[in-house]
Amino acid sequence: MQTLIRGCSQLVTMAGPARPRGGVEMQEIGLVENGALLIEDGKVLAAGDYESVCRVAADGFDAKNVEGRVVTPGLVDAHTHPVFGGSRLDDFERRIQGLSYAEIARMGGGIRSTYLKTQNSKEEDLLKAGEVLLMQMMQSGTTAIEAKSGYGGSVYHELSLLRVLSKLNAQGKMKIVPTLLGAHAVPEGYMSASFAKIVAEEMIPVAASEGLAQFVDVFVEDGYYSHDDARLIASAARQHGLGIRLHVDQLHDGGGAALAAELGAKTADHLEHVSIEGILALKDKGVIPVLLPGSVYCLGSNQYPPARKMIDAGLPVVIASDFNPGSSPVLSLTATMNMACTQMKMLPSEALVACTVNAANSIGLGGQIGSLEKGKSADFVVWNASDYRELAYWVGANLVNQVWVDGVRL
Amino acid sequence: MQTLIRGCSQLVTMAGPARPRGGVEMQEIGLVENGALLIEDGKVLAAGDYESVCRVAADGFDAKNVEGRVVTPGLVDAHTHPVFGGSRLDDFERRIQGLSYAEIARMGGGIRSTYLKTQNSKEEDLLKAGEVLLMQMMQSGTTAIEAKSGYGGSVYHELSLLRVLSKLNAQGKMKIVPTLLGAHAVPEGYMSASFAKIVAEEMIPVAASEGLAQFVDVFVEDGYYSHDDARLIASAARQHGLGIRLHVDQLHDGGGAALAAELGAKTADHLEHVSIEGILALKDKGVIPVLLPGSVYCLGSNQYPPARKMIDAGLPVVIASDFNPGSSPVLSLTATMNMACTQMKMLPSEALVACTVNAANSIGLGGQIGSLEKGKSADFVVWNASDYRELAYWVGANLVNQVWVDGVRL
Repeated sequence: MQTLIRGCSQLVTMAGPARPRGGVEMQEIGLVENGALLIEDGKVLAAGDYESVCRVAADGFDAKNVEGRVVTPGLVDAHTHPVFGGSRLDDFERRIQGLSYAEIARMGGGIRSTYLKTQNSKEEDLLKAGEVLLMQMMQSGTTAIEAKSGYGGSVYHELSLLRVLSKLNAQGKMKIVPTLLGAHAVPEGYMSASFAKIVAEEMIPVAASEGLAQFVDVFVEDGYYSHDDARLIASAARQHGLGIRLHVDQLHDGGGAALAAELGAKTADHLEHVSIEGILALKDKGVIPVLLPGSVYCLGSNQYPPARKMIDAGLPVVIASDFNPGSSPVLSLTATMNMACTQMKMLPSEALVACTVNAANSIGLGGQIGSLEKGKSADFVVWNASDYRELAYWVGANLVNQVWVDGVRL
Repeated sequence: MQTLIRGCSQLVTMAGPARPRGGVEMQEIGLVENGALLIEDGKVLAAGDYESVCRVAADGFDAKNVEGRVVTPGLVDAHTHPVFGGSRLDDFERRIQGLSYAEIARMGGGIRSTYLKTQNSKEEDLLKAGEVLLMQMMQSGTTAIEAKSGYGGSVYHELSLLRVLSKLNAQGKMKIVPTLLGAHAVPEGYMSASFAKIVAEEMIPVAASEGLAQFVDVFVEDGYYSHDDARLIASAARQHGLGIRLHVDQLHDGGGAALAAELGAKTADHLEHVSIEGILALKDKGVIPVLLPGSVYCLGSNQYPPARKMIDAGLPVVIASDFNPGSSPVLSLTATMNMACTQMKMLPSEALVACTVNAANSIGLGGQIGSLEKGKSADFVVWNASDYRELAYWVGANLVNQVWVDGVRL
């Protein structure tokens, strides 16, 4: 049966070319006043003004009136770390008390503490914890995510985390694109080059052959992995048909954007310290910048990535939550949009493009999600708002009224 | 009948002296593991460990198991502006585009646009809009607020806003302490001194005699009201038995803290630019600092008030949302706690004291709310968290599970 969602004060379709939007195109959100959405069998049949959509509808449709609310595509979070053991609440306090990352690590905290807690967790407990987090994301309006492993710290545990992601994906609610982040922090007792070799030679082949990952990510930073480590891992990824994402230029300008361009990465993530040359390199090679204001904010920094410079250069900016227990316990993309607007001076329209159509393209799902157009998945959110800009405006309010995935209301 | 709330992983009682907590006392939250709360007739009968609370309970109590969740006192928001007409979404976009406050005002935005929209609203519409906002605050865990008028811009409209607040208070859900902020922006066509005279001679006597306000507030800043304006208004407030709160030292160090001390204000609010001398003046005269990270954040500034210096000086810091449509569309005190922790380096315990017991004292309700102790109002929140620090840790997640006011679950 067909379902007609009507009474939208504003329907944000994001209709347009099925590619990432850069520059001034980032303000194009396909806004329809008094809009309606017709869905059937989990797909969008029509989206537009009420009269034109009604003309397409078959007799006997089920009409749902959203009573003057805003409807948008389901939000897409292109950078998350949602599966891990334990919590990092002690680190949260220690950081407030002014302890350095090295001191926190010496006290038994930091990322390696999450490695240990993850390794000591049963897979079913990791799955349960992941379910809770994913449900909170969905209740905030997110319907698809890129999700990284990265807290395993060994071949066995990294593959185990990818299997947990696979099970979460199979539950059929949140759409999950899995990324192998074998090269996150360097595990105790290894040099980065030797662990990069393990990632390239032992993790990637299995992850690829078992269909457990679609992308490979590397944390490129002093004290983590080098450019050469990233080259080794990227080469293995390409060999096995996996896309490449890179954590770069977060703590200083390490030439990571140029590296991402060199390696043909799909995305370069973080980029707090990217140079103008780096921005131009991304533009030149079509690498999508994924900006993560949540971790900047949560660490109490004010070194946000230069979003305006990127948009002015024509880049299709993505914003994502960077959800993780250490530096970004941010579960909500509207909170992320708010940071993008207030701290990075992105317009509400740009912020919404950044976490719908651009984000969908950045995780390889541009043809299926990210906009409400004929043939796309009927993944959408009804918001307790009459103006789409409210999604980015309010702080600490969850505006979600309804979340629909594949034509089914959660 | 008695109700026993049991199964609290952590019961935060805030038990202790019924006065604002300064310095290291701000870490004292009265934490009880495996706690329980016994309530009757809207009041707390006992709060503490399960066994000791059970000993006090009469036969036939109604037991509610909160299954390992955290329970805290209802949060108290000591600085809000919740009644106004229209929205400020256009200003939100204009500010992102880099327009100055003066330019925004010339384009028909800014605070005077809210004056106009408020003056053109029917009282019943202001009431309805206020109800929606208050409900969102309560759903975020806030059970009592200080609420200011301030968007009237005339004697008639200011008193009208106070009447709306009185009606909202009479609904008996949110506890509201009303403040007359007649001296907010200077209305078109007035000099600040002449409007201050109107506030002192026409607004305050009526607000006091009709019981419409408990406090009077003045926005002391270049281009707003002067020290002498504040002295005139404070003198009238004292004469009519109203307490004094002052917006000071927000945009520059204008000696506002010393002025608050001179005038015997209950609170000095904002204080982003307060000097060490100002901090000592507050301490000397027992003025409570009310810090408002929401507006700093939303304006994209990083000039947060020096909370740590104040705490180190022994001051009892309050944090509040500063909820208002222009500079702080922040409805949630957990979002405010998160900013206090990540941006102002307050500990989670300090942030929680700041918006419970200290906030309650700052609005004159220290004897009734702000802690869970025998005889106090049974206003409390059950949180989807097992550790109280989570209230300050998560971003963009509403952790509220249940809100109780006067012993009744909302």
